[in-house]
Amino acid sequence: MVGYAFMGAAHSQAWRSAGRFFDLPLEPDLAVLCGRDAAAAGAAARKLGWRSVETDWKQLLRRDDVALVDICTPGDTHAEIATAALDAGKHVLCEKPLANSVDEARAMVAAAERARAAGVRSMVGFNYRRVPAVALARQLVADGRIGQIRHVRAQYLQDWIVDPEFPLVWRLQAEKAGSGALGDIGAHIVDLAQFVTGDRLAGVTALTETFITERPLPAASSGLSASGSVERGPVTVDDAALFFGRFAGGALASFEATRFATGRKNAIRLEVNGSAGSLAFDFESMNELSFYDGTEDPSTAGFRRILVTEPTHPYAGAWWPPGHLLGYEHSFTHEIVDLVRDVANGADPRPSFLDGLQVQLVLDAVARSAAAGSSWTEIETS
Amino acid sequence: MVGYAFMGAAHSQAWRSAGRFFDLPLEPDLAVLCGRDAAAAGAAARKLGWRSVETDWKQLLRRDDVALVDICTPGDTHAEIATAALDAGKHVLCEKPLANSVDEARAMVAAAERARAAGVRSMVGFNYRRVPAVALARQLVADGRIGQIRHVRAQYLQDWIVDPEFPLVWRLQAEKAGSGALGDIGAHIVDLAQFVTGDRLAGVTALTETFITERPLPAASSGLSASGSVERGPVTVDDAALFFGRFAGGALASFEATRFATGRKNAIRLEVNGSAGSLAFDFESMNELSFYDGTEDPSTAGFRRILVTEPTHPYAGAWWPPGHLLGYEHSFTHEIVDLVRDVANGADPRPSFLDGLQVQLVLDAVARSAAAGSSWTEIETS
Amino acid sequence: MVGYAFMGAAHSQAWRSAGRFFDLPLEPDLAVLCGRDAAAAGAAARKLGWRSVETDWKQLLRRDDVALVDICTPGDTHAEIATAALDAGKHVLCEKPLANSVDEARAMVAAAERARAAGVRSMVGFNYRRVPAVALARQLVADGRIGQIRHVRAQYLQDWIVDPEFPLVWRLQAEKAGSGALGDIGAHIVDLAQFVTGDRLAGVTALTETFITERPLPAASSGLSASGSVERGPVTVDDAALFFGRFAGGALASFEATRFATGRKNAIRLEVNGSAGSLAFDFESMNELSFYDGTEDPSTAGFRRILVTEPTHPYAGAWWPPGHLLGYEHSFTHEIVDLVRDVANGADPRPSFLDGLQVQLVLDAVARSAAAGSSWTEIETS
Amino acid sequence: MVGYAFMGAAHSQAWRSAGRFFDLPLEPDLAVLCGRDAAAAGAAARKLGWRSVETDWKQLLRRDDVALVDICTPGDTHAEIATAALDAGKHVLCEKPLANSVDEARAMVAAAERARAAGVRSMVGFNYRRVPAVALARQLVADGRIGQIRHVRAQYLQDWIVDPEFPLVWRLQAEKAGSGALGDIGAHIVDLAQFVTGDRLAGVTALTETFITERPLPAASSGLSASGSVERGPVTVDDAALFFGRFAGGALASFEATRFATGRKNAIRLEVNGSAGSLAFDFESMNELSFYDGTEDPSTAGFRRILVTEPTHPYAGAWWPPGHLLGYEHSFTHEIVDLVRDVANGADPRPSFLDGLQVQLVLDAVARSAAAGSSWTEIETS
Repeated sequence: MVGYAFMGAAHSQAWRSAGRFFDLPLEPDLAVLCGRDAAAAGAAARKLGWRSVETDWKQLLRRDDVALVDICTPGDTHAEIATAALDAGKHVLCEKPLANSVDEARAMVAAAERARAAGVRSMVGFNYRRVPAVALARQLVADGRIGQIRHVRAQYLQDWIVDPEFPLVWRLQAEKAGSGALGDIGAHIVDLAQFVTGDRLAGVTALTETFITERPLPAASSGLSASGSVERGPVTVDDAALFFGRFAGGALASFEATRFATGRKNAIRLEVNGSAGSLAFDFESMNELSFYDGTEDPSTAGFRRILVTEPTHPYAGAWWPPGHLLGYEHSFTHEIVDLVRDVANGADPRPSFLDGLQVQLVLDAVARSAAAGSSWTEIETS
Repeated sequence: MVGYAFMGAAHSQAWRSAGRFFDLPLEPDLAVLCGRDAAAAGAAARKLGWRSVETDWKQLLRRDDVALVDICTPGDTHAEIATAALDAGKHVLCEKPLANSVDEARAMVAAAERARAAGVRSMVGFNYRRVPAVALARQLVADGRIGQIRHVRAQYLQDWIVDPEFPLVWRLQAEKAGSGALGDIGAHIVDLAQFVTGDRLAGVTALTETFITERPLPAASSGLSASGSVERGPVTVDDAALFFGRFAGGALASFEATRFATGRKNAIRLEVNGSAGSLAFDFESMNELSFYDGTEDPSTAGFRRILVTEPTHPYAGAWWPPGHLLGYEHSFTHEIVDLVRDVANGADPRPSFLDGLQVQLVLDAVARSAAAGSSWTEIETS
Repeated sequence: MVGYAFMGAAHSQAWRSAGRFFDLPLEPDLAVLCGRDAAAAGAAARKLGWRSVETDWKQLLRRDDVALVDICTPGDTHAEIATAALDAGKHVLCEKPLANSVDEARAMVAAAERARAAGVRSMVGFNYRRVPAVALARQLVADGRIGQIRHVRAQYLQDWIVDPEFPLVWRLQAEKAGSGALGDIGAHIVDLAQFVTGDRLAGVTALTETFITERPLPAASSGLSASGSVERGPVTVDDAALFFGRFAGGALASFEATRFATGRKNAIRLEVNGSAGSLAFDFESMNELSFYDGTEDPSTAGFRRILVTEPTHPYAGAWWPPGHLLGYEHSFTHEIVDLVRDVANGADPRPSFLDGLQVQLVLDAVARSAAAGSSWTEIETS
Repeated sequence: MVGYAFMGAAHSQAWRSAGRFFDLPLEPDLAVLCGRDAAAAGAAARKLGWRSVETDWKQLLRRDDVALVDICTPGDTHAEIATAALDAGKHVLCEKPLANSVDEARAMVAAAERARAAGVRSMVGFNYRRVPAVALARQLVADGRIGQIRHVRAQYLQDWIVDPEFPLVWRLQAEKAGSGALGDIGAHIVDLAQFVTGDRLAGVTALTETFITERPLPAASSGLSASGSVERGPVTVDDAALFFGRFAGGALASFEATRFATGRKNAIRLEVNGSAGSLAFDFESMNELSFYDGTEDPSTAGFRRILVTEPTHPYAGAWWPPGHLLGYEHSFTHEIVDLVRDVANGADPRPSFLDGLQVQLVLDAVARSAAAGSSWTEIETS
């Protein structure tokens, strides 16, 4: 595993836990954690349960005890590491977004295609697909319970930078993060909308905004400059992104990703309306799926709150009895379970790098539309 | 109509509105409002839409333009007025509780039986039966959608006397109100539980409590006594009543009525669990019924939030299109609609005085159980 | 009152009820109902409580017993009737949308301005402003509890034409209805968003769609043509409209109006995020306002479900005790109360015709943007 | 650890994960798993991460590498194992209920007291105390935010034996399980009610019921007897238990534990009403606490939905950013964290065996009241 911050902790818990609840054809061996700072990486490895440490990710590719590289670093490093790993014959799990640009993502897809011929697998980490309620939503759509899809409504709402004195961290700098809310959280709802519907966005119109254009520099945030004033720097990414579009199959979709929704902490909302029924999901109640069956008698029709903890529900049977809830980290465990099984079975994991590229193409069209005064922008084909 | 306070206003709106939305076989004529204070009654009559005033309710019985007496006075006057009106050949609508004692209620039932032989009708005003969601709940039980009932869980929660400085109004005095939370709001949930299940409570065990045993006298509440201190008097009714019991059909039931549930304003909650399904209702969301169909596939089973505003729902079709909500007062309008139709058609309205007596018998058993250290108490048959 | 269908029934109930619960400086006299078909209008007048009938609306302007004309007809007739009535010195209440075109709306505003000089008042019927929870939302914004507004999220979701066999009623024909979901329900959420924020939309980008482009002709819908097949005609309005925009004050806004949201009956949702707090409202729970106070301690901060039935809440004190809910029609009663008071006090009612024009300008920009491939479109100033 | 079924899996995950997210003064070493069937225990040990196996729990007491015994067996074995382990100088974590009888529980408390003098610690596993929302509830009560407590309303609702063909498993046999819903899930809500209020129940009145008195024998459930009919045996425990009572501090409380609440899977509900505010919790939304502050302005007062995932909330800061939910198993992890810290620091963990005994005394009073016709029954002092 390369990187050991927020995503590194989530992935480690998943690698450690997957085999404890699911039957795996291969037993994960947490061989090595990689970080540039040897001391910090060593401490993280002990904390997170990895048995050795490297400070140069290229070393991982030379080690015989490394069969898979799990990339948990910021997006600007994904392309180089993933491509090299795949070319070295290592399976790759790469955190989302796949890359910071379409060109990088295309290169990664090419590498994945090359590797695939040699039986080397790759996967991009859109973990929310494996929240049981989301997986059930996909099933219901695939089973025709929603019918012809008319509307998709997706929002990802957070509020962690509402305070204008929140410092200018790297996630607010374009050169490092690529974009702001758009790539960080907008990417998730684009993937979710495409996954649940089984369809692709064809075109979009977008609007982005940076509400707070200057923020205290991180260093300055805990002190004063010589002159006694807080030093500030420019915010170079979006604080919020709104866009709507059309799916290839004709459905309309609206998206909103923001870090300025005061009181909403991690509200991922998805609603799908079709000719036969509707679905609604909110991550703040992640164990529930709301389902309206439009074929029922109107007198007893209503949105059902399905508690997605039954043995018949995706992933749920491996855990606890009905009504005993799962949390955020379980989505990663399910990701690892499916990845390990696919690797063992010689199957191609999903979401693939191609799926990751497709999301990147949407984000790219969104950014171009916003830059061009919200003009309608077709999404390139992957 | 006798009385013109809270219930008088609700009934007047119902009498005025029933024929505007429903086809009635008879047209209500708001002939006369009766109150002891001529000036106040006159003002109320103008405000509420009644065309004349009397100060002695006995006058109503002598007037040819009065075919029905609607009794909206406190419970200690119900028996005398209702009995006299029925004996005078006037139909009677009597607010709940039917009476303050079982003896009075029995006398009223006897009067109703006598009058019935002469085609004179009577009804007791448990208005919540005619909230569309409650009427739908009754339908679902009657249609067998819930199966054999195992549990009933009923609560009526308010908070208007949490403040110990709230004055000693008549509702807190036993000689006027009969009881406290028990008769005022407990009566409603007893009636609802019996109505929705179609069954009768057979026995109960109860606990009542008066948390604040002394309160400022109403006069004193806006001033000081000669000695400079607020004068107080004893609270002689219950602040809260808890009881559980068995239905004749074997279901278990729990009840709680309180005026000390801080933050709950008029929370009437009813939950029914049966072998085939479950129902849940909360008056704070009175346009919704929650229904769980236990015969569904577990993968898509869940409590459905039925918005009870469809044309196929009880009463709802006469009002607005689906999704346009009704309010508290509509339950009274529905009561009047059914009453007028029954009177015109020579049918016996429900809830009948016998239904009212049955509730009184439950309240009486509750009071006796509480007085006897929560001992199990059989409910007398009516 | 001109017209007596859905809106006519709602307005009549409001005219009849306003003085029963609120103290009015003038007593409404339901003088005359106007409809082209004498028999049908006569039946409606009896049902709805109007004391006479006219078949030509111009007659109303000549009658001395008519001080105010309440226009409840389809939008294509608003301009002519309202202008004539105002010029004849009659106060006017005009249902929304103010008109079917900007030009008509401008002419109506001009008429309103002329009349105003003579003390003649006008109001447009955006009734949802007077749902107590919405009025409270406006108060909280005006009091600064939300701070600088960043986001507005508004949806109006219905599902009554999901079935492709639903007939081609007049609301689906452009020449009569002007537009589809956009003008019918989109108008409401534009008005609500501007009302609650106290701000104006400055520009929009839009997408509209007609999912079902042909439907059975109404006549044909209950029979077959000579050839044995159902005759169909083209749907010439939008089934759904999505748009986003910027407020003059800098907030971003997204809107969605659709008749294809299966299972959503009349879901009017509004969410506002600001620097100090957030608000959320859903008409399916119309007695509640959800409020997040961003200045609270994070440990106890959370969206509060305010049950808007307290005596201190807008309009609520005139009705029932706390916790006793109001319904859809009460919004009209409140509208009439405020209108009558303004007329009596010589004040200008809101929403004014100018407010109605402002909404029309937004709808016009939406339609132009959608027609021009979702291009960014500035909203004309009124 | 002794036992490796449902609780064994939950405890193992907690032992493995505690140190990965929290800083622990001692590092848990999963030394040995004990089960009577060597093969099965060996498989479980591998699956759950224990490094050795024993088939006789007494062996654990002789091993130097065992410092603490975690008892996850059925209740009838708790007393013997726990007492022996404590006397052998091993710390003990014992699953709830502490024992199947008051006598056993008293003996265990005595053993815990003896051991305590030697620095040996004991804890009973009421895990729900350490759901962050429940821990926050306790804090708010302790901080006086709820004021004088008037009402506690607790329910634990499940539905796994609604089907009369569900077999007669050991949990439905008194000799093994002690009691049915009462001891299994009723114990949890008694502990929660006492924990959150910081008070003790003083007396109760109870009603228990067995709805299905005969069930297929487990063996027979998958086959037929020689005679071709399914063999059945008697259910000797309660299916449901209702009770109410008084707290020492004067609050009223009602409890309901049932396995017949169709559609409720693991609904643990707790509501507390006090003179200054109220709290409500439902485990089906376990990351939320509902809090009503009665000291707020009535115009903006309302139940707040606190998402208990902030860094300032109990336990939450060690996991993920705000809005990223936790699940059922995290309550066990928190239990282990606190236990390990207390052991290291020489502190007495809570809930103690004395707390477990107190719950047992309540259950015993409930059973005695139910057996004596719901008579009022004082709870013995521990």
